[in-house]
Amino acid sequence: MTDLALLPATQAAQRLRAGTLSATELTEALLDRIAAREPLVKAFAWLDVAAVRRAAAAADALPASARGPLFGLSLGVKDVLDTAQFPSQYGSPIWAGHRPRSDAGCVALARRAGAQVMGKTVTTEFATRQPGPTANPANLGHTPGGSSSGSAAGAADGFFHAGFGTQTAGSVVRPATYCGAVGFKPSFGTLHRAGMKVMSETLDTIGVITRTVGDAALFMGGITGLDFGNPEVKPGRAPRLGLCFGPTADMASAETRALLERAAAAAAKAGATVVPLEMPAAVNALVQAHPVVMNAESAEALAWEVDNAAAQLSEGLAERLGWGRSQAGGLAAARQVFVSAQAAFAEAIQGVDALLTPSAPGEAPEGLGWTGDPAFNFIWTSLLVPCVTVPVATGAKGLPLGVQIVTGMGQDREALAWAEWVRQAVVG
Amino acid sequence: MTDLALLPATQAAQRLRAGTLSATELTEALLDRIAAREPLVKAFAWLDVAAVRRAAAAADALPASARGPLFGLSLGVKDVLDTAQFPSQYGSPIWAGHRPRSDAGCVALARRAGAQVMGKTVTTEFATRQPGPTANPANLGHTPGGSSSGSAAGAADGFFHAGFGTQTAGSVVRPATYCGAVGFKPSFGTLHRAGMKVMSETLDTIGVITRTVGDAALFMGGITGLDFGNPEVKPGRAPRLGLCFGPTADMASAETRALLERAAAAAAKAGATVVPLEMPAAVNALVQAHPVVMNAESAEALAWEVDNAAAQLSEGLAERLGWGRSQAGGLAAARQVFVSAQAAFAEAIQGVDALLTPSAPGEAPEGLGWTGDPAFNFIWTSLLVPCVTVPVATGAKGLPLGVQIVTGMGQDREALAWAEWVRQAVVG
Repeated sequence: MTDLALLPATQAAQRLRAGTLSATELTEALLDRIAAREPLVKAFAWLDVAAVRRAAAAADALPASARGPLFGLSLGVKDVLDTAQFPSQYGSPIWAGHRPRSDAGCVALARRAGAQVMGKTVTTEFATRQPGPTANPANLGHTPGGSSSGSAAGAADGFFHAGFGTQTAGSVVRPATYCGAVGFKPSFGTLHRAGMKVMSETLDTIGVITRTVGDAALFMGGITGLDFGNPEVKPGRAPRLGLCFGPTADMASAETRALLERAAAAAAKAGATVVPLEMPAAVNALVQAHPVVMNAESAEALAWEVDNAAAQLSEGLAERLGWGRSQAGGLAAARQVFVSAQAAFAEAIQGVDALLTPSAPGEAPEGLGWTGDPAFNFIWTSLLVPCVTVPVATGAKGLPLGVQIVTGMGQDREALAWAEWVRQAVVG
Repeated sequence: MTDLALLPATQAAQRLRAGTLSATELTEALLDRIAAREPLVKAFAWLDVAAVRRAAAAADALPASARGPLFGLSLGVKDVLDTAQFPSQYGSPIWAGHRPRSDAGCVALARRAGAQVMGKTVTTEFATRQPGPTANPANLGHTPGGSSSGSAAGAADGFFHAGFGTQTAGSVVRPATYCGAVGFKPSFGTLHRAGMKVMSETLDTIGVITRTVGDAALFMGGITGLDFGNPEVKPGRAPRLGLCFGPTADMASAETRALLERAAAAAAKAGATVVPLEMPAAVNALVQAHPVVMNAESAEALAWEVDNAAAQLSEGLAERLGWGRSQAGGLAAARQVFVSAQAAFAEAIQGVDALLTPSAPGEAPEGLGWTGDPAFNFIWTSLLVPCVTVPVATGAKGLPLGVQIVTGMGQDREALAWAEWVRQAVVG
């Protein structure tokens, strides 16, 4: 049964379509996995097994003509996205027991494509820093990362085929990396945020966490109706890669630095042209501008919570919101830094197909109190461009390590294709 | 009592601060006005007079040190913005009786600044085309425009000092113009959309409708904590204005065309330099790109409604959402047209301080079945730039006519200042 739960969604979809696998069989395999592991991993903020079984039975009863591209596949929904079926609590006691009337737009579109919502996955407090109870499935004593903690842990551990995540700094890519999964933050605006508890309107981007790059493309294509390509089909040529540590290079552990050099060497051996690439000053200016935009906008988003339920905010968040509100006067200038950085980045990458860059500083930190640093993510989030992390190694402590592929705005298909190309080059 | 209800908020604020007017007195004047006129105008989707009286009494009980910049002033909230106190029904039977747990971010910030929420104002169906019951206070047989119908009619008729509106095509500027009010759509992103029923993430912008330009600056400043200037203080110089009819020039009635020529002449007489200005082709391309972005994004936003409550959508909206979904493949290219248009516009206006352009094709159309055409608004909304409409004349049918001032991105203070300058030049 374990094997069936871990079957890539692309392969499961073929068997579901061919009729050699039923949605119920597949779902039971996932539920077995959940029964065995969820008490330890704690990926779910809400799980209703009976509802999931009913959904699978209903899926199996559908005529073939009504079966969408995600028919019979299962989805975990980060608990900052509304669902009519399950409570939506945003990782905050302020929203305990909240039951929205509707699904978020992306959830409705996933259901329309045939996906079954397995449940709500743990988010940090309002997708910020205060962690939930989720543990890293690769080592329960380590953080799964955040803020999309439950979607990363659940996808990595075979609870569902894809988990929705959201990223304001590094909340899709970092937890996916820590848990040994694939994390895909598409170009800004690819998935509509209707029904999401948005913090930063300039930054927040919905993405998916899966076990394979092909599965990320399958889910994104099914939800949007767009073509995200088939990353598992080898491109006709090798990529030109820019090896880039960015302005936060100092944050990389020796292990991460060595991993990137090794990945670059493996890519070169497989035919890639790899050149070192520095970011221009206009991009590096995001180091100062990102926290201003993120926190000033979050302070507007949570104005009601601050004024009506301050005692139920974590101390750290309350403090950052206060600082954010004090930065309101600098918001317009910080947004202008974003615009300049985006133009400078488009110029800077003209000679390469993609950047090869760290996914995270290193392995997932020990303990569940801190979800790790988004140092290698917030720059690309601010640039609004696609980012894909792929698991390629295991670190000294036995936890997963990944590398990240970043492309230009709108080059989502290319990001997925080169990420899979690099992954294969590294893992052989 | 009528005079007190129609007192500009800037003047009321001075008297409230000086203690020569209480919040209760001011509120009672507004309630008298509402009692007399609301049965005809129908601006409110929800009004709870007892709650409003309690809010005014509570305001009067506040020590002077706790009185914010909008202390004692009243606000109407378009019913696409959530309120914890009142139902939030988005102009759709699908959301009948919906009670959010929280206020929208902008509503919470307005309350924090001391504003009292007078109630929820009528919106068209999800801020699209299907009208609500609101009539034009200047002539009850005519539309107030949409989609911010109730905020425009109520602000114009003295029910509250400011009404929140939202604009995707022309939903702040057009109804404000039709009702003889001031409509201010600030730069995109000025007010956070947390707690708004967003349709188009690329376009939707929250703004305010007031009776004077000074009141718009007062409310925006109070809510954001930023400085929107004092438009009633005459600038040290006259503006350079670009007289611009844009790519939809043919939609202007003869009356509107004559009004703009007259306004340009009056501005020139008052010292302005007025030059004719054509938009470049990259801007005019928005005529095709705007409906793609608006409808494709709206189709994602309302995916749940389409799949779960299609029978309760108006026929027109259901049809446009179906068309929008069919355009998903063109969305990225249409957004790229927006980016190019924004860059081209910034170039095109370098020689002027502001554009002088029509607010609407002409007077408000007769009947309540159609809210009029956003032909003179959607271009500027797509450019994300500040727009201000000011009432300057009465048309042949006795309904208000306005002119619109448009500036570059982030030049919100300038937009308000030049709008008031032009208004004074025209009305004398």
